[in-house]
Amino acid sequence: MPVAHITLLEGRSKEAKAKMASEVAESISKHSGAPMAAVTVIFHDVPPDNWASGGVLFSDKQVAASGS
Amino acid sequence: MPVAHITLLEGRSKEAKAKMASEVAESISKHSGAPMAAVTVIFHDVPPDNWASGGVLFSDKQVAASGS
Amino acid sequence: MPVAHITLLEGRSKEAKAKMASEVAESISKHSGAPMAAVTVIFHDVPPDNWASGGVLFSDKQVAASGS
Amino acid sequence: MPVAHITLLEGRSKEAKAKMASEVAESISKHSGAPMAAVTVIFHDVPPDNWASGGVLFSDKQVAASGS
Amino acid sequence: MPVAHITLLEGRSKEAKAKMASEVAESISKHSGAPMAAVTVIFHDVPPDNWASGGVLFSDKQVAASGS
Amino acid sequence: MPVAHITLLEGRSKEAKAKMASEVAESISKHSGAPMAAVTVIFHDVPPDNWASGGVLFSDKQVAASGS
Repeated sequence: MPVAHITLLEGRSKEAKAKMASEVAESISKHSGAPMAAVTVIFHDVPPDNWASGGVLFSDKQVAASGS
Repeated sequence: MPVAHITLLEGRSKEAKAKMASEVAESISKHSGAPMAAVTVIFHDVPPDNWASGGVLFSDKQVAASGS
Repeated sequence: MPVAHITLLEGRSKEAKAKMASEVAESISKHSGAPMAAVTVIFHDVPPDNWASGGVLFSDKQVAASGS
Repeated sequence: MPVAHITLLEGRSKEAKAKMASEVAESISKHSGAPMAAVTVIFHDVPPDNWASGGVLFSDKQVAASGS
Repeated sequence: MPVAHITLLEGRSKEAKAKMASEVAESISKHSGAPMAAVTVIFHDVPPDNWASGGVLFSDKQVAASGS
Repeated sequence: MPVAHITLLEGRSKEAKAKMASEVAESISKHSGAPMAAVTVIFHDVPPDNWASGGVLFSDKQVAASGS
């Protein structure tokens, strides 16, 4: 019954999430001893206006990066 | 001031959430001793592409279940 | 497979948590349609040095409240 | 590498989030000793149907408040 | 900068966590496109008094399972 | 009623947390429009065995950094 909440910038494909869900659940099951069926993985998509590192929103970094 | 974050597959009605919020807050208030007004309940709706159990996304399970 | 994370000030008894877990899971199951066995409830105990409302830690409020 | 998850009722502007992200990261960096670049701030927007205090959804409070 | 919060029943060894952290970060990096160095994995250990499935605390299940 | 969950490596003093709680709540109140009294800030202390960046636990990085 381990639970993984994975927060990502929005835009990842369903295929990418399916692979992450499978591999993450397998790793957690293998090393925690919990059965695979008991592992929950939940993705939280976050828009670039809602995520900051170093105090700057990603949407503002993208503007800067694409500037010139 | 207890805080409950409840993660659900998307699609529950507002009426269902209203009942859960009321009952969950009442239970937490009653057994924790915090006043009812101080209890916060937050729902996080998750699409079936973003939720996996046993390493498989719900959206892929639904395809499988409805298949053939 | 709904998941509830409930954050509480530390110090609640196991009996109180058992009752909250039972009632919260029952409410979520009833109104979300998920089977009772699929509902997860996780408590996070937080010490009063780690919880603030209105910008003031609970441990400082308790000092103030018990003062004089 | 501190991580702040900030849950807000939806509707705040990007400008408001940019200011919160900057000030929150600066405060955490200053008092935790972590470098500014290592601080992550993530906002989670929650609709008023998904947030309850005192057991009542915000969307129902708004109906009541605007009533009659 | 993806962030994974993994909630586990307490008692897993540091070695098990090190392996999960490495594999989970590698999977997320590979499929999300984020650089490995930007992936954060945080484990939250939860005692059996604080975790319930189906409305029953794990500590009460263990008593039942070991009974008779 | 905004809620901030701030995850930190364990070891920060109560004084540091008190300052972060005050400044973070003030920033959120100012820019979100929520009253200061309605802002909740919760710190989650995480031991270095439970936090990884780039797939490596902090406790292993510290061993490496202090080695030789």
